Amino acid sequence: MCRKLAIIDLGSNSIRVIIMRINNDGSYIMLDQAKEMVRLSEGMGKELTLKSEPINRTIHTLKLFKKLIQSHSVDEVHCITTAAVRRAKNRYEFLKTVKKETGLEFRVISGEKEAYYDYLGVINTIDIQDCIMIDVGGASTEIAWIENRLIKEVISLPFGAVILTEDFLDKDIITKDMIKNLENYILEEFNNIKWLKKAKGLPIIGVGGTIRTIAKVDKKKIKFPLVSLHNYKMNIEEVSEVYKKVTSTKLKDRKKIPGVSKDRADIIAGGIAPVKCLIEYLESENLIISGNGLREGIFFENYLKDREYKIVDDVLINSVENILKRYDTNLKHSYHVQKLALSLFDQTKELHALGENERKLLAVGALLHDIGMFVDYYNHHKHGFYLTLNSRPYGLENRELVICAYLVAMHRDKSFKESWRNYKMLIDKEDYNLIKKLSIFIKMAEKLDRSEYGNIKNIDCSIDKKAVNIKLNSTYDPELEIVSVMKFEKDFKKLFGKKMNIYRAS
Amino acid sequence: MCRKLAIIDLGSNSIRVIIMRINNDGSYIMLDQAKEMVRLSEGMGKELTLKSEPINRTIHTLKLFKKLIQSHSVDEVHCITTAAVRRAKNRYEFLKTVKKETGLEFRVISGEKEAYYDYLGVINTIDIQDCIMIDVGGASTEIAWIENRLIKEVISLPFGAVILTEDFLDKDIITKDMIKNLENYILEEFNNIKWLKKAKGLPIIGVGGTIRTIAKVDKKKIKFPLVSLHNYKMNIEEVSEVYKKVTSTKLKDRKKIPGVSKDRADIIAGGIAPVKCLIEYLESENLIISGNGLREGIFFENYLKDREYKIVDDVLINSVENILKRYDTNLKHSYHVQKLALSLFDQTKELHALGENERKLLAVGALLHDIGMFVDYYNHHKHGFYLTLNSRPYGLENRELVICAYLVAMHRDKSFKESWRNYKMLIDKEDYNLIKKLSIFIKMAEKLDRSEYGNIKNIDCSIDKKAVNIKLNSTYDPELEIVSVMKFEKDFKKLFGKKMNIYRAS
Repeated sequence: MCRKLAIIDLGSNSIRVIIMRINNDGSYIMLDQAKEMVRLSEGMGKELTLKSEPINRTIHTLKLFKKLIQSHSVDEVHCITTAAVRRAKNRYEFLKTVKKETGLEFRVISGEKEAYYDYLGVINTIDIQDCIMIDVGGASTEIAWIENRLIKEVISLPFGAVILTEDFLDKDIITKDMIKNLENYILEEFNNIKWLKKAKGLPIIGVGGTIRTIAKVDKKKIKFPLVSLHNYKMNIEEVSEVYKKVTSTKLKDRKKIPGVSKDRADIIAGGIAPVKCLIEYLESENLIISGNGLREGIFFENYLKDREYKIVDDVLINSVENILKRYDTNLKHSYHVQKLALSLFDQTKELHALGENERKLLAVGALLHDIGMFVDYYNHHKHGFYLTLNSRPYGLENRELVICAYLVAMHRDKSFKESWRNYKMLIDKEDYNLIKKLSIFIKMAEKLDRSEYGNIKNIDCSIDKKAVNIKLNSTYDPELEIVSVMKFEKDFKKLFGKKMNIYRAS
Repeated sequence: MCRKLAIIDLGSNSIRVIIMRINNDGSYIMLDQAKEMVRLSEGMGKELTLKSEPINRTIHTLKLFKKLIQSHSVDEVHCITTAAVRRAKNRYEFLKTVKKETGLEFRVISGEKEAYYDYLGVINTIDIQDCIMIDVGGASTEIAWIENRLIKEVISLPFGAVILTEDFLDKDIITKDMIKNLENYILEEFNNIKWLKKAKGLPIIGVGGTIRTIAKVDKKKIKFPLVSLHNYKMNIEEVSEVYKKVTSTKLKDRKKIPGVSKDRADIIAGGIAPVKCLIEYLESENLIISGNGLREGIFFENYLKDREYKIVDDVLINSVENILKRYDTNLKHSYHVQKLALSLFDQTKELHALGENERKLLAVGALLHDIGMFVDYYNHHKHGFYLTLNSRPYGLENRELVICAYLVAMHRDKSFKESWRNYKMLIDKEDYNLIKKLSIFIKMAEKLDRSEYGNIKNIDCSIDKKAVNIKLNSTYDPELEIVSVMKFEKDFKKLFGKKMNIYRAS
């Protein structure tokens, strides 16, 4: 019926597995994931051979992951491995042993392919046209220039968090000289990439565990109100502050920095350096963190296997549909409410003067308005607020996400008390006024389809000096719909300065 | 594949419909609901005839509900009607018109049957053995004595919120004399019920919209931290305070009391009076509000149609299984974690000295620990906290519900920051210490089944002076499981005062 995929990614630092399910209706969900910091590349040294101790740890963990995969009755397993194995002289021997011991067959991918998968993970879950993407791994760093949602240039650099730490830093105490040498080396490498300087000013998308750590540290410090890291935005000052924090502390103290994991603390400075240097080098305004990269990219390659470019047409629409299906929403009603809400919005433009972006938010809020019913019918507007914030609708910035969650919360004729000030890091008073304006369209549309069977075919608005006259084209007498919508008469007048009249089209 | 039921309940005050789905796996969910305050009994007067104005309103609404039902492609429709129609002289004519106009065939049920359905709604969703149940409708009041989860006595009294208001009160200003006459009348009626005084001291379960209003008013006042009303507990002082509030205000101000709905404000005093009198009459310590009654009872009659008594064996287990299925949880893993957690709990009893009730909470927390994954894998412990609190696991008191939610939230080796003080109306510091103790068993069990395939068959604990020695019977070498569990060594020692050793059984 459905299809289950496991994707195992064996890096220099960690092994990770994700288990995804593609449902019959085309929706997908992550069922499970696991990670182990096995540090396969440990002690590889200049002779570039994988050592028996880390090899044993790796095989041990892979056996465990194999069990996990079996317990989920997975249909397909995709195993890839990157720089550590790519560079190792004894890689064939190693992969043969892995195959023999675990039955898992690994594909060694190039740095460019790694960047490509990162790109697929990013471009299918962040709504962006042009950017520079960076992934700092343990033993390599991938950089890609994305233009019009396609890869324009890509490079894999032969250094990562582990190697830079080994070559330039000390695991415990980091001196200013060490940092200087490290940064000079990185900048020289950047200078050697001919196309990189042409990408000046583009936003940077950061992928991978190291970069997520930068965001985690910042997020903990400012007490960010959302739990997901995906789409988290930082500027150069914020990144520099985290960099300073990890380079100016001893290992013991570095382990205690909120957001830094203990098993990454020794190499985190080497991992952040390329990102910090890249932002400065390109004079980018923002670093945007992607929670999705390599593994999700491989997932999308399979999920979208019939498409030439393996990218969804519209990140937002694809993701919202996925969420609607997951929560078993009445799709007909959701789309009808969306249609009516947008129709009201479009025909009252001269009153609200809102633009395309606000229209997009209204469209999303209208579609998602009932998802909370999956938790419990009663108070489903509140549950919808929580689910919208936490179900990762891709393709929205965090500010937009919070606005959409409020639209869902306020779609009902019920109180919703959560103050916008709890999210004031992302929205302001003006956004809250926008929410009030947009939510009345959803409220009205919801009442116009109160029987959920599409009685009101379409709406015709005409605006005169004093009033907005709304004519309803309906199959049956829309008396009850009219009574219900008229409850918002006062709110409407307050928001738009005009009376609202509703009639049945004759 | 699945079965959809619509249940329409035509009362004196309101018409309500719920739409339920029974899935193939035996789980169920409410898909939708609607209510309209049509006040069918308005103006019935002494001559006891339904008037044309309210009849028209009713038929109009029923047509609308019919559409709603059709839009959900419902398989079965159950329509029942109670006191208003039961008492009406023109009921046959009315029902014929309804049938002709809407196609809906209503079953007029007796007061006793009404009480029976209320009982089914209550006894399948509240874990209680003995109680008195009361439902104050518009034109009748049902009281039942429940003993050992079965109905022992039942009566339907010929008065409700509408009738008592018409006969004794004024819709606007209520005087002390009016109240005195009203209460004397009610107490006299109670005195006429021979068995009622024998039920002295039993807890009272309140059902229906009027009684929910009492809870809503109290809940708003104290800023109760949960959204659901089901299981809400009040004592006589709290009920009296609400009663005083609604009887001492004019209609205009009564409508403004937070929790009182505008279209119920005129009759609410008449509706609360029987409840307040009953609590005093029986000297009951508590009024427990049931969010479920008549309609849910009809649902359970159908859901459990193969059972003689139409009641589930265990409210809690039935409900938790329902939730596990809804959130598509890995059942094998959930039950295995439960088994291991309970085994640890049972074998360390001399250390923690906790009892059967705590064991029950541990069992629930262990089963639900992964439900949050349905929202998003990352931070699923936080999502699990929200879903546990809001998915109505029946059979738990609210204090127990909050404890279980915390157990779910703390099952992972991750931080969970929500302070127990946000729920201090329901749990105290001591409960929080209990949560810490119980959650370590779930954490350990989760790590012992980290590959989710049941490697650890069972656990053997022996306790000596200094340590708890845990032997694992496993299929494969449990090395990684042991390493993972040992992360909790310190926490374990802190909580139970002993070291913990873990070995593989030889």
